Amino acid sequence: MAKPKLRIVPLGGLGEIGKNMTAFELGNDAIIIDTGIMFPANDMLGVDYIIPDFRYLLERKDLTIHGIIYTHGHEDHTGATAHVVDAFKGVPIYATPLTAGLLEVKLREAKLLDHTTINVFSAGDILEVGPFKLESFHVCHSIPDCVGFGINTPYGIVVHTGDYKFDNTPVDGKKPDYARLAEFSRRGVLLLMADSTNADQSGWTPSESVIDAAFDTVFRQAKGRIMVATFASLISRIQQVANAAQRYGRKLAIAGYSMGENIKMARKLGILDVPDDLFLDVNDLGRTPPSKVVIMVTGSQGEPSAVLGRLATGRHRTLDVEVGDTIIVSAHPIPGNEETVFRTINRLFQRGANVIYDPIAPVHVSGHAKREEMRLMMNLVRPQYFLPVHGELRHLRAHAALAVESGIPQDQVFVAENGMVLEADKYGVRMGERVPGGYVFVDGSGVGDIGRTVIRDREILAKDGFMIISLDVDKKTGKMSGEPEIISRGFVYLRDADELMDNVKNTIADVLASTTSSKNGKRRDRIQESISRMLYNETKRRPMVFSIINER
Amino acid sequence: MAKPKLRIVPLGGLGEIGKNMTAFELGNDAIIIDTGIMFPANDMLGVDYIIPDFRYLLERKDLTIHGIIYTHGHEDHTGATAHVVDAFKGVPIYATPLTAGLLEVKLREAKLLDHTTINVFSAGDILEVGPFKLESFHVCHSIPDCVGFGINTPYGIVVHTGDYKFDNTPVDGKKPDYARLAEFSRRGVLLLMADSTNADQSGWTPSESVIDAAFDTVFRQAKGRIMVATFASLISRIQQVANAAQRYGRKLAIAGYSMGENIKMARKLGILDVPDDLFLDVNDLGRTPPSKVVIMVTGSQGEPSAVLGRLATGRHRTLDVEVGDTIIVSAHPIPGNEETVFRTINRLFQRGANVIYDPIAPVHVSGHAKREEMRLMMNLVRPQYFLPVHGELRHLRAHAALAVESGIPQDQVFVAENGMVLEADKYGVRMGERVPGGYVFVDGSGVGDIGRTVIRDREILAKDGFMIISLDVDKKTGKMSGEPEIISRGFVYLRDADELMDNVKNTIADVLASTTSSKNGKRRDRIQESISRMLYNETKRRPMVFSIINER
Repeated sequence: MAKPKLRIVPLGGLGEIGKNMTAFELGNDAIIIDTGIMFPANDMLGVDYIIPDFRYLLERKDLTIHGIIYTHGHEDHTGATAHVVDAFKGVPIYATPLTAGLLEVKLREAKLLDHTTINVFSAGDILEVGPFKLESFHVCHSIPDCVGFGINTPYGIVVHTGDYKFDNTPVDGKKPDYARLAEFSRRGVLLLMADSTNADQSGWTPSESVIDAAFDTVFRQAKGRIMVATFASLISRIQQVANAAQRYGRKLAIAGYSMGENIKMARKLGILDVPDDLFLDVNDLGRTPPSKVVIMVTGSQGEPSAVLGRLATGRHRTLDVEVGDTIIVSAHPIPGNEETVFRTINRLFQRGANVIYDPIAPVHVSGHAKREEMRLMMNLVRPQYFLPVHGELRHLRAHAALAVESGIPQDQVFVAENGMVLEADKYGVRMGERVPGGYVFVDGSGVGDIGRTVIRDREILAKDGFMIISLDVDKKTGKMSGEPEIISRGFVYLRDADELMDNVKNTIADVLASTTSSKNGKRRDRIQESISRMLYNETKRRPMVFSIINER
Repeated sequence: MAKPKLRIVPLGGLGEIGKNMTAFELGNDAIIIDTGIMFPANDMLGVDYIIPDFRYLLERKDLTIHGIIYTHGHEDHTGATAHVVDAFKGVPIYATPLTAGLLEVKLREAKLLDHTTINVFSAGDILEVGPFKLESFHVCHSIPDCVGFGINTPYGIVVHTGDYKFDNTPVDGKKPDYARLAEFSRRGVLLLMADSTNADQSGWTPSESVIDAAFDTVFRQAKGRIMVATFASLISRIQQVANAAQRYGRKLAIAGYSMGENIKMARKLGILDVPDDLFLDVNDLGRTPPSKVVIMVTGSQGEPSAVLGRLATGRHRTLDVEVGDTIIVSAHPIPGNEETVFRTINRLFQRGANVIYDPIAPVHVSGHAKREEMRLMMNLVRPQYFLPVHGELRHLRAHAALAVESGIPQDQVFVAENGMVLEADKYGVRMGERVPGGYVFVDGSGVGDIGRTVIRDREILAKDGFMIISLDVDKKTGKMSGEPEIISRGFVYLRDADELMDNVKNTIADVLASTTSSKNGKRRDRIQESISRMLYNETKRRPMVFSIINER
C-alpha cells in the first residue's frame, strides 16, 4: 500500500501576524501545532479577538487528532486553546513547563481542564504523537521555554521554527540549539517553516542583553522612582529589571495582576531568579524613599485599563505619577497600537514623568529574527523546500525572496495564505487544495456571528450615529397627532439642536401632507428618505434614520 | 511710554503633530503664522478634521490682525485657511508662489477669495506686516517653496524655522539658507522656535537625492509597469520619478486628480521641469507596452478612495493591478495610518504586484530634521531662548533636552502646549497666561458641535450597536397588545437571532406583568434595564437599548 501523503494545513499565521495554527496530516492521522488568536485591527469595530477558522478540521470526520502541541506561551500561539479544546474534547496537549502553566490557567477559567490532559515536556525532548515523531529544540524569543520542532515524516524532516531569534547572549543563559538544527540538516530537511515577522528588517536583532546597559544608564541617573512597563509574559525583562534593582539598591514592587501571577509561576518553575527580600508590596511604597524603588507595571501597549494607561489618565486605585518619576516603556507598539502607546507616553510626560522609550534609549529589542538571522536559519537547516510563516503577506514575500537569494530554487519556495494546503509525497512538495481559512470574530460570547453586515452598520453608527422618530398618525385624517418622539445618539448634541428638531417635525408634516398612499411601508420609507436628506443638507452627516408610525 | 510686550500665542502645533498656528502680538497689533489642520486619531469617531481653537483671537476685540503669513503649503499649515479667513475677513495673506497657488484653490472652493488678498513673496524677501518686519529664508522640506522667518521685534530676532531639514543635495538645487541663519545669530537671536517632529530620531535625515539610487535599482530591474505612489504635493519626488522615467525610456502617466492639478500648477510656476512629450494620458496606457510606462498615483497613506486604495481593492475605474507590476510606495505612513497602509500593501501583493517600500528599499526619506540637524540649527542660530514647536509632547521634551545638552540654560528652554503664551520684554522671555488652545472637531458642516458626549455614544454604538423596541400596551390591562417592533443595528445579525428576539418578547411580558406602577417613565426604564441585562447575559455585549411604549 502506498504511504499516505503528508498534508500541511495552515489555519492561521500566513498572510497575517498572530493567530498561529497549523495541522499536519498523514492519511487519517493529524496533529495541531499552536492555537493562537489575533487582535482586531482598529476598524474591526467591537471585535474582541479573532480565532482561526478550524471548520475544515471539524468537517474531516475521518480524521483522528492525536495532540495539540505548543511552541510557546504567547497569546498569538495559545489564545484560542479554549475554543479548540472545546471543539476537540479529549485530545491531549503537549507543552513546555511555562507554556503548560499558562494553558492551565486559561483552561481552568473556561472550565475545560477536564476535557484534555496537559503533557509537559522540556526543550530537547522527543514527542511521539500519533504517527509523528517531533524532536523539540530550544529557541530564543521574548518569553521563556520556547521551542521549535523537527517533525519526522516519511518524506523527510519538516522544521517548524516557532517564533525565534538567534540570541547569543540570552538573559537566561539558554542559547539557541544550533547543534540540533545542524543535525537536522545532516539528516535531510524536506521543508523549513520559519518565522517571517521581521523579514523586511535588515541586519540582526540585538540580544536581550543590550538592554542591561540602557537600564544601567537610566538607573544611574534617576533620582526619583523608576517604573518599568513591559509585557506581563516577558519574564527575562523582569529578570533584567530585578537585576538592575539589586545593582542600584532599589526594591521591586509589582503592579498589575497578570504580571504578578506570571512572576509567581516563573519563580515556582525556577525560570525567574529573584530573592524574596527584593520584593516590596505596592501598598508599602509610601513608606519607602522614591530613590529606593522600582515598580514594574503592565500596560506597555497603552491599554486604557492596564496600570500604565490608568497612571496616564490618573485613574489608578493606589498609584499616581509624581514629578520626578522616570518611566521606562520597555516594549515596542504592536502594529496598530502606535497612536495609543504614544498618547499614553505624552500623557505621562504631561503628569511630570520623564519617559524613556525606544528610540530615546534602547530599552526594548524585538523577539523575532531579522534578515541576517533568517539567512543563518536557512543555511543551518538547508531545506529542500521553504514556506515562510507567521507574517503579513508583505513579510512572507520578503522572506520568500530572501530564500531564493539564499539559493533555494524559486519553484521550491511557497508563499501561501491561510487555508492553502501544502502536500508532500515521494515526488516532493506542492501546493494542494484550498480549505476555509479566514477570520472568525469573537465578540462577547458570540463566535463567528459577527460578519460584514454588522461591522458595516457599526461603521456607519461610529461615524454619524442614528435617529429614530416615533410618531402617532390619525387613521382618518392621515395627519400627525401630538409631538413625535425623537431618539438620537452619536449624531449631534441634541440639547443644542432645537432648530434641527423643528426641521424634523416640519419634514414629517410635509411628507404626511403630500403622501396620498396610506400604505404604511411606503409612507415610512418616504419619511426616512426625506429626513435623511434634510439632515444631510443641514449637517453634511448621514446618520441612520428610522421611523415608527403608530396609527390610531 | 514703555514699549509693548511681545506675546507669542501658540494655537496649534505644540503637544501635537499637525494643526500649526501661532499668533505674534505687540500691544494691539498682531500677525498669524500658519493656519493648519490636524487629522483625527482613529478613536475620534466620525471627525473629519481638527482645526485650531482660535476663540482667543476672536475675543481680543482690541487686537488688529495685520496679516496671515504662511511657511509652506502642507495641510497641517494651511488646511484651516477657510475657517480663519471667514472669521477674520479682510486680513491679507502672505505666501510664496506655490503656497499661494494652493491657498487660492482652497479659498475659491470656500467662496472666500473676495475676503482676502493674497500677497506673493519669494524666499529671501522681507515682509513688513503691521509693526513686524519678517525676513524670510529658504528651508528644505518635502514640498517646494518652503520658508522660515526671522521676525524682528523690539527685543531681538525671533527665528521660526517652519518645517525643515538640512538637505545639502536637494532635488531642486535650492540649498538651505545657512548664510541668513548665521547672519541672524550675528545680530542676536532672542528666541528660536524649531520643528521637533523627529526629535527622538538620532542622526541626520538623508537627502532627497538618495532616492534616485533606489529608483535606479527598481527601474533597472522592473520588467512590467512601474507605479509610484506618493503625496500629491511632493513635487520633488514627482521630478525624481520623471527623471528616472527619462533615463529608462518610460513615459509618465498621472492618476489622481489632486496630483494632476499640483503638477499643472508646479509646471506653470517653473518648479517642476518635465518636457511635454514625457507625459502619457492614462487612457493611452493600453496602447503602450508595460515596460515603457510609469504611472504616478495618489493614495500613499492607504486612503480607500484614492488611486492606490482603489487599485488594492480592484475598484478603480480604468486601472487594474496586473501580475508583473512593480509598485513603489514612496512615502512613510503618517502615525496612526500604519495598519491601513500595510493592509493596502498586502492587498497589492495579493493582486500579483511586487511592492517596494521602505525598509525594503530607501524609496522615501523624511522631510523633517533629525537630532544632528537640530543641533546644527541651534548652533547656527545661537538663540538666547528656545521653544520647540511642531511635535507631540514627547518630541518637544526630547528637543528641549537636546537644547539643554547644546548649552542653552535649562531655564531658557520652554516646553509649552497649545494656548500657553510666551511673553518677552526687555527683561527676557517667560511663560505667561494660558488661553484656550484645544481641539475643535469638524464633522460635516458642524464646527465644534461634536464633543465628548457624542463621541462617547459613537464609541458604544461602534462596539455593540443599539436596539429599539416599540410596543403597544393596552391602557386598561397594562399588557402588550400585538407584537413589539424591534429595530437593531450593529448588535447581532438579526436574521440568525430568532431565539434572542423571543427572549426580548418574554422579557417585556415579564416586566409588564410585574410592574404595578403605570407611570410610563418607570415602566420604560424597567423594560430597558431588563432587556439590557438579558442581552448581556446571552451575548456578553452591551448595545444601547431604548423602548417606546404606545398606550392605546
